[in-house]
Amino acid sequence: MIIVMEPGATSEEQQAVIARLEREGFKVHLSRGIERTIIGAIGDKTRLRAETLAALPGVEKVVPILQPYKLAGRDFHPEDTLVPVGELTIGGHQVHIIAGPCAVESREQLLETAMAVREAGATMLRGGAYKPRSSPYSFQGLAAKGLEFLAEAREVTGLPVVTEIMDPALVTAVAQVADVLQIGSRNMQNFALLQAVGRTQKPVLLKRGLSATIEEWLLAAEYILTEGNSQVILCERGIRTFETYTRNTLDLSAVPAVKHLSHLPVIVDPSHGTGRKFMVAPMARAALAAGADGLMIEVHPNPQEALSDGPQSLTPEQFARLVQEIRPIIAASSRELGHLVS
Amino acid sequence: MIIVMEPGATSEEQQAVIARLEREGFKVHLSRGIERTIIGAIGDKTRLRAETLAALPGVEKVVPILQPYKLAGRDFHPEDTLVPVGELTIGGHQVHIIAGPCAVESREQLLETAMAVREAGATMLRGGAYKPRSSPYSFQGLAAKGLEFLAEAREVTGLPVVTEIMDPALVTAVAQVADVLQIGSRNMQNFALLQAVGRTQKPVLLKRGLSATIEEWLLAAEYILTEGNSQVILCERGIRTFETYTRNTLDLSAVPAVKHLSHLPVIVDPSHGTGRKFMVAPMARAALAAGADGLMIEVHPNPQEALSDGPQSLTPEQFARLVQEIRPIIAASSRELGHLVS
Amino acid sequence: MIIVMEPGATSEEQQAVIARLEREGFKVHLSRGIERTIIGAIGDKTRLRAETLAALPGVEKVVPILQPYKLAGRDFHPEDTLVPVGELTIGGHQVHIIAGPCAVESREQLLETAMAVREAGATMLRGGAYKPRSSPYSFQGLAAKGLEFLAEAREVTGLPVVTEIMDPALVTAVAQVADVLQIGSRNMQNFALLQAVGRTQKPVLLKRGLSATIEEWLLAAEYILTEGNSQVILCERGIRTFETYTRNTLDLSAVPAVKHLSHLPVIVDPSHGTGRKFMVAPMARAALAAGADGLMIEVHPNPQEALSDGPQSLTPEQFARLVQEIRPIIAASSRELGHLVS
Amino acid sequence: MIIVMEPGATSEEQQAVIARLEREGFKVHLSRGIERTIIGAIGDKTRLRAETLAALPGVEKVVPILQPYKLAGRDFHPEDTLVPVGELTIGGHQVHIIAGPCAVESREQLLETAMAVREAGATMLRGGAYKPRSSPYSFQGLAAKGLEFLAEAREVTGLPVVTEIMDPALVTAVAQVADVLQIGSRNMQNFALLQAVGRTQKPVLLKRGLSATIEEWLLAAEYILTEGNSQVILCERGIRTFETYTRNTLDLSAVPAVKHLSHLPVIVDPSHGTGRKFMVAPMARAALAAGADGLMIEVHPNPQEALSDGPQSLTPEQFARLVQEIRPIIAASSRELGHLVS
Repeated sequence: MIIVMEPGATSEEQQAVIARLEREGFKVHLSRGIERTIIGAIGDKTRLRAETLAALPGVEKVVPILQPYKLAGRDFHPEDTLVPVGELTIGGHQVHIIAGPCAVESREQLLETAMAVREAGATMLRGGAYKPRSSPYSFQGLAAKGLEFLAEAREVTGLPVVTEIMDPALVTAVAQVADVLQIGSRNMQNFALLQAVGRTQKPVLLKRGLSATIEEWLLAAEYILTEGNSQVILCERGIRTFETYTRNTLDLSAVPAVKHLSHLPVIVDPSHGTGRKFMVAPMARAALAAGADGLMIEVHPNPQEALSDGPQSLTPEQFARLVQEIRPIIAASSRELGHLVS
Repeated sequence: MIIVMEPGATSEEQQAVIARLEREGFKVHLSRGIERTIIGAIGDKTRLRAETLAALPGVEKVVPILQPYKLAGRDFHPEDTLVPVGELTIGGHQVHIIAGPCAVESREQLLETAMAVREAGATMLRGGAYKPRSSPYSFQGLAAKGLEFLAEAREVTGLPVVTEIMDPALVTAVAQVADVLQIGSRNMQNFALLQAVGRTQKPVLLKRGLSATIEEWLLAAEYILTEGNSQVILCERGIRTFETYTRNTLDLSAVPAVKHLSHLPVIVDPSHGTGRKFMVAPMARAALAAGADGLMIEVHPNPQEALSDGPQSLTPEQFARLVQEIRPIIAASSRELGHLVS
Repeated sequence: MIIVMEPGATSEEQQAVIARLEREGFKVHLSRGIERTIIGAIGDKTRLRAETLAALPGVEKVVPILQPYKLAGRDFHPEDTLVPVGELTIGGHQVHIIAGPCAVESREQLLETAMAVREAGATMLRGGAYKPRSSPYSFQGLAAKGLEFLAEAREVTGLPVVTEIMDPALVTAVAQVADVLQIGSRNMQNFALLQAVGRTQKPVLLKRGLSATIEEWLLAAEYILTEGNSQVILCERGIRTFETYTRNTLDLSAVPAVKHLSHLPVIVDPSHGTGRKFMVAPMARAALAAGADGLMIEVHPNPQEALSDGPQSLTPEQFARLVQEIRPIIAASSRELGHLVS
Repeated sequence: MIIVMEPGATSEEQQAVIARLEREGFKVHLSRGIERTIIGAIGDKTRLRAETLAALPGVEKVVPILQPYKLAGRDFHPEDTLVPVGELTIGGHQVHIIAGPCAVESREQLLETAMAVREAGATMLRGGAYKPRSSPYSFQGLAAKGLEFLAEAREVTGLPVVTEIMDPALVTAVAQVADVLQIGSRNMQNFALLQAVGRTQKPVLLKRGLSATIEEWLLAAEYILTEGNSQVILCERGIRTFETYTRNTLDLSAVPAVKHLSHLPVIVDPSHGTGRKFMVAPMARAALAAGADGLMIEVHPNPQEALSDGPQSLTPEQFARLVQEIRPIIAASSRELGHLVS
């Protein structure tokens, strides 16, 4: 940790900083420049102290040196983490596609979609039973009934189920059905929820928050990891910027960034990331070329009747075409499209 | 609602849109321009339908006309809402200052701060018992013990207590102590939590999300209002932008915007909004000059020992000075600094 | 154009809007809803009028329907534009790589780099003689001397030269050397400069501004096109967001967006887009998978001695490896890596 | 300057960094932590070197310690700069209001506005003769004719004239008429233009770029100052964020930030900053309460006929009312509304 003193800081102020650092067990180096004095402190462990020091009189700024996450970082865990989901493995040689409707709307809609996406090449099924919606007047999901339909769809197709959870009180119920618990972008810093899923033994799909830095995203993963659950799959789904043509700005550079900083697998959701049907296939290709471990794609048998996210949902035919369009990119990336054995 | 057709949309596609609109009970107007055909639909009620229509073939975009919130909007509720908090009223002639530490750290720290801020002119006490922290390694709050100290501080000073709630399961426990339930910016779209506080009869302080538009913020308020709780106080606390000199960018234009669009009171938190002690007073003055109904200020007896937010916390002396500095602005705004009778 | 009236707008205010529209030659449709009256106007030509109408009393908002650009849009020019650069064609079946140093620093540096990138597969040479730098204390480029070296490098390697121009007064001088005139992101809305390059017959590489929407970017292209120069190549190079891990956020969704809205070719600069060497190759692959017509890559024989942009510059060896890594993606996209005949 | 080495950096890499620093005349301190080695370098002068070092093998990041601007910073120039404009002084005890139309549209429009704003309390006249417009189809200004009208308006009213300049080639012509040369936000990093106005002896009003950090803004001022012109007035006018309700997000925290970091005066433009008429007065009040040295306000005799920026332009009556509304805030800030003597 580096402490930069203000130009006019007194030597009493400097001494107070040094005394404080030494009291906390830091080894201290003092460098007096012409314009600024800087104090290097070896031994820092957490951000908390950085913040505390910044409040001391005469301190201009404190620059943390170490990454604030430990379990999620590559520094102490250099090999890639592989997350098993049933017979599948996320983060390995195979690339997996999670597909399905934004929301579970009915038994028929879900089963029809599940069979179609499995047929086309998806290896996991998505579908929301509990839906976070900006407006209280929008469709909020079928809740328990939706979970039931998801369980049936898995039964019929063999596809593991990914579904969102929004309330810590529902973790047990949802975990009984879901193969992967999804934390949506609005809840990326819902710490009570992160801790609750961290106490399960289910894989967690952690979407990046709309305005979360990569560091905050990895710290959110750290919340899950510190509870003892190491099966976290990260999912880039677009960040909020000034651009309004797309629903969000899909930050594909997050893929190599996360691969560099962390050992956790990372997938990409080009449906939410763009909000526009015609962009889903090119951005799916781009995501895989950038090194993503998988995709999450919204598919609806009849997007114009969808109760949510119609404009970005593909029909089963469009989804089947997308799978064909990404195959050469997967091959060009020396990877393989995952498939179910059973 | 306006539906803009793509340049090459066929007349079948047009007819399908019109048929769909009429099926849903809309009155339809068709305007054929040289380059685009547009369809006006009278009778829209929700965003949901806008989204659904955008998924129809041949549709370029759908432009909603009405605001998506009803209860939070001024259209149907032109008079200002006044929120009573004990003997105080938020949103009326008087301006109120909520002050206190970021986190409750100990009985002594809280009582000392509470007495000092009351003495200086604050009329409500803030203090977090449950703290949302980006890192799992940061101080997470004293939890139940913190609530206890808050209750005692109210007892001693008479200041109503504002404290944050992060988990729907804790609403009952926190509501037993808090006079105002605070929803933090990270939880602005934690819908389970919004619904839970909406079912209490306690005033709710709803902070704007880091990347929430004003419309989304008012829709979050709508979640609380639709549950039957009409006592919502909005709080602007800075949004996330590219600027890194300040912790956030305090969006004071949100104050006149919210006053224009909504009848709910709005206060400003210049401590989180700037993250820098020396900016708190000028931005507090600016907030009141812009028309804010109150302020929320972090005060700590010893900021350099604070377990969170030290760099932006004022000492009791600095806070007392701030109150003196804002008095002329309050007078210049034809308002009055609130005070406790008892 | 759609004019939405305020809830309380009087019928005089409505009549004034209608009268104004009719005076300007618009055909008007009036739709009275329960909560809002909306006025549709057929015949709008420019944004100017939208803005003027928004200032009329009783008007809540004006929604433009048509795209504000004409020459740059696909509506009236459905086929792709191909931009010839010497014997090369940008925007066709072949994908081209522009490579070279950020700044021309010396004759040796430039020649060495030019020969190396040509050898590795680049078909155009980049290099700045005039450098826009945030700080006046940073290296500002070799100016006329730099142009001279660029001319020599072209002579030696046969690579067409792309170089930035910052001052309308220098257009003639730079155009004598450059094969492609580059407008940097800071100058995307330097309208005097756009008009000046629009009056030449040289291809223009127009970088997207740091905070430019896609619409504003296409309007900037429109400035060049309306002056009579139709040879515009767009270049996505990252936008400014809250994320600080990368220098900018490379918005690859701009590639399919621009392809959809415009007929102009679009290339991607992953060096500026990320600011980090290790991200250049994965983002180059992703750009091509998304459909980009080419790449612009910074290469320096000795990045740690570079006078600008060292951290994102590849060595010639790293660049040669990148070309190998993108080849399979180009093939997987049914395109071909361009090459010089001569 | 602090150099943080990667966890696996070799001691050869460390030595190379140290050798390089010593070669450049830096005094070096080495601190070996358990997880990272950091190198402190005393004597840094420019950002250039920071960037160069970041490109050395084994370097994780480089943290500059000193502010990159010198002339614009308070470190070496602690007293406030006062900028004289005719008989007025910007940055002193008096607060000044610059008012007038966005664009000069006609002799009558300008004279009428100029007389009205002078009458109401403005002390300087704004008006664009050369207009930067996003679309080439929008009104581009009256050019030389506009300058003529501005000169006449000054003659008649005695108000000094502020007008924008967009092309270095026009500096001489515009400087013959203007009392203050305005650099618009789109040109904040048009370095050729900054240097050109830096070579005049006219005060320069430097608007903050739409996506410029405060540091970049002060570096843009540095470009002017290094050319020998020390009369720079900064103007905050809103930054680009995700919020779409306002045209821009007016960043009032920039006022205390700039006052802290720099000695230059800073004014605020709430018209462009919000884009909405009803917000201009509250944000003008807020700006002054935050410590701004003046305001820039758009006024048009007939906003609904304005050729640009109608929705945010006040009528002369509204402007007169605004001046009344800000008076108590000015008094509450212990300042005085400026006035012309003559």
